[in-house]
Amino acid sequence: MSKRPTATKPKPMNAFYAQSGGVTAVINASAAGVIEAAMKTKLINKVYAGRHGIVGALTEDLIDCSKESRATIKGLRHTPAGAFGSARYKLKSLDQDRAKYERLIEVFKAHDIGYFFYNGGNDSMDTANKVSQIGDQLGHKVICIGVPKTVDNDLPHTDCCPGFGSVAKYVAVSTREAALDVASMAKTSTKVFVMEVMGRHAGWIAAAGGLAGKGPKQAPHIILFPEIAFDKDAFLAKVKQCVTDNGYCVIVVSEGAHYADGKFLADAGTKDSFGHTQLGGVGPVVANMVREAHGYKYHWAVADYLQRAARHIASKTDVQQAYAMGKAAVELAVKGYDAVMPTIVRKKAKPYKWEIGHVKLSEVANVEKKLPRDYITEDGFGITEKCRAYLEPLIAGEDYPPFKNGLPDYVQIKGVAVKKKLNTEFKP
Amino acid sequence: MSKRPTATKPKPMNAFYAQSGGVTAVINASAAGVIEAAMKTKLINKVYAGRHGIVGALTEDLIDCSKESRATIKGLRHTPAGAFGSARYKLKSLDQDRAKYERLIEVFKAHDIGYFFYNGGNDSMDTANKVSQIGDQLGHKVICIGVPKTVDNDLPHTDCCPGFGSVAKYVAVSTREAALDVASMAKTSTKVFVMEVMGRHAGWIAAAGGLAGKGPKQAPHIILFPEIAFDKDAFLAKVKQCVTDNGYCVIVVSEGAHYADGKFLADAGTKDSFGHTQLGGVGPVVANMVREAHGYKYHWAVADYLQRAARHIASKTDVQQAYAMGKAAVELAVKGYDAVMPTIVRKKAKPYKWEIGHVKLSEVANVEKKLPRDYITEDGFGITEKCRAYLEPLIAGEDYPPFKNGLPDYVQIKGVAVKKKLNTEFKP
Repeated sequence: MSKRPTATKPKPMNAFYAQSGGVTAVINASAAGVIEAAMKTKLINKVYAGRHGIVGALTEDLIDCSKESRATIKGLRHTPAGAFGSARYKLKSLDQDRAKYERLIEVFKAHDIGYFFYNGGNDSMDTANKVSQIGDQLGHKVICIGVPKTVDNDLPHTDCCPGFGSVAKYVAVSTREAALDVASMAKTSTKVFVMEVMGRHAGWIAAAGGLAGKGPKQAPHIILFPEIAFDKDAFLAKVKQCVTDNGYCVIVVSEGAHYADGKFLADAGTKDSFGHTQLGGVGPVVANMVREAHGYKYHWAVADYLQRAARHIASKTDVQQAYAMGKAAVELAVKGYDAVMPTIVRKKAKPYKWEIGHVKLSEVANVEKKLPRDYITEDGFGITEKCRAYLEPLIAGEDYPPFKNGLPDYVQIKGVAVKKKLNTEFKP
Repeated sequence: MSKRPTATKPKPMNAFYAQSGGVTAVINASAAGVIEAAMKTKLINKVYAGRHGIVGALTEDLIDCSKESRATIKGLRHTPAGAFGSARYKLKSLDQDRAKYERLIEVFKAHDIGYFFYNGGNDSMDTANKVSQIGDQLGHKVICIGVPKTVDNDLPHTDCCPGFGSVAKYVAVSTREAALDVASMAKTSTKVFVMEVMGRHAGWIAAAGGLAGKGPKQAPHIILFPEIAFDKDAFLAKVKQCVTDNGYCVIVVSEGAHYADGKFLADAGTKDSFGHTQLGGVGPVVANMVREAHGYKYHWAVADYLQRAARHIASKTDVQQAYAMGKAAVELAVKGYDAVMPTIVRKKAKPYKWEIGHVKLSEVANVEKKLPRDYITEDGFGITEKCRAYLEPLIAGEDYPPFKNGLPDYVQIKGVAVKKKLNTEFKP
């Protein structure tokens, strides 16, 4: 790992923290981990957070975390979504986006920022890695540490990604509950229920739906993964068999489910700012397919943001890991590491034991970890025992937020801006 | 109220319990209330439940509840959906469906059933009322008591309906959580979030979304009720104003939202970018309308069964009321009442105090209670303080189910069938 020479004692500097990409139920727990750990080290003066992630750095819109109360910082642990604002804003290569990287260093230099904690997924780890390089090139050293976050669970070199355990728990719980509903109604009404979940390229979230039940009689009876090319005939035959055998059929479908030619079942034609096809709506597509073929009465649900924001049913394991990753990021920085990301290392599955490791950002950046083939049953429609053993510890434990008047009492930051020091404006 | 003469002491008889219509997170709590109360009275021998509701009575498919363990009956209190199976099966008038009513009495007579507890909504109260009448006509007296249940909250003469408080809590919590997500992302990505909720004719569930925030800045910024004819121009103008003012806009839309001519938005026949007809769901229809007019990036969620099955985030008040309604139904029967339904009577709003009353089934049957106009703001897009004061106590308190391996530990009945006594078959 790239460790800084420790001969000369580094002078205290400020740290910059930013949230990136799609938010989760526990990304703020990582923020709390970063901020609380930073308060404990003499190497870091203040933590500045980017308002709306990296965009806040580019526009010199920094939030002074020292202006937030201890209670607010503590409350971030039980508050979903990105309290400081996140951004879907990808920096390209150093050549292509050099001005942006230089602007970052300009802002960091102006605000005496020597540490950068970037809380995100694959793309963000790539950006953090490049910021580390450009800082060196421009003579303003910035220690860049990634803090893993993604509901998609697709980062390599870590047992799992903070954010995933909670969405997995939400999906498993919701599938179990909805399945009981359908089972109640099937005799005279709804026979097929389709639950659409997130996961564009990796089927981890869809797989978590499989935890709702066990064996061929229990729901979900069918899972459609992005890792398995969709075979319409096989699917429709299995739905029919399932309704015949059990009276009803519960299907969990990943938004990334696609045909053999790569075309998404839900392809709606629009694209997001990363150029990714905007998905949403595979649930109704699949439900309609079943109705057309078999005429069964159906219902479908699309949880969308509900699944990744559901802090009320977060996994305790996930909350603990999210906080630990934030804390570990600061500890790695203090130890002199640069361009690394803390990881979760599974020591034992049952009872679940994990410890903290780390990996070079260059090894994480832009690599996607998909569901291994042996986590999926031979017919492609379910999860194996191996997959179940992997997933179960990640949804373990409840960590309910405090409630007030029947609703979760989530915190909100004051978001006091750091005084600007540059006269230059930057349009990101 | 129709009270039975108490001069002669009635002989103990069996009771028939059935679940009807769309199930809820707490209908089984009412079942537990009925069964546990019945075990305490000498007037009732056994409780038989209909497998799939009234269909079980017609087909003589009765479940012997005495064969279930005490733990299972107790566990029904924390188990969502219809443990005995529900049915969408409406009996028409006595003239039109006379054979079915006679069949019910035949089955009741054969199994010594003198009590009928029907757990459902408006239609079911009508059926229970007619069963009471036909029993009298055919010389087999059946005491018929309704047990109120509907997530739609549209039964008259009761402060609220068991099932509603929990779906209201789910919708309020989910809206608050998703709103935090959108607020995080709005700067560079999603600016509009649409959450579709149940309620075809009454906007109670949509109104509950309004509890997620307060004032014009907090989400949800717009609620679309079935009680207010949809005005596309006014809606789109408000969305634009909202995004301009707050950076984002959260919309809760009732599945029953419709135009002035009565046409549902969900039936609007809109097409996606490929020219395919949009498949069901008012949520995507509204989201697409916003995109076409303003070009904002959007997300939408359709909770569907998830909202009414979400026992994991049930309202404690709702669970208590559901159980109390089941218990009260038996107590009314024991006291000699017939053709009535227990009701929830609000004594005080803050702190919430309620007691149990009752009403004639004939006064409940086929009447729908809609959201009063003064519960909706003048512009038709929000809830008033009066509405908030009504709703708040109903979502109060959490009542978490026990968890095992990260998932709610819901009970399942054995469902032992009562031996058939009739040689006749009946096709319902």
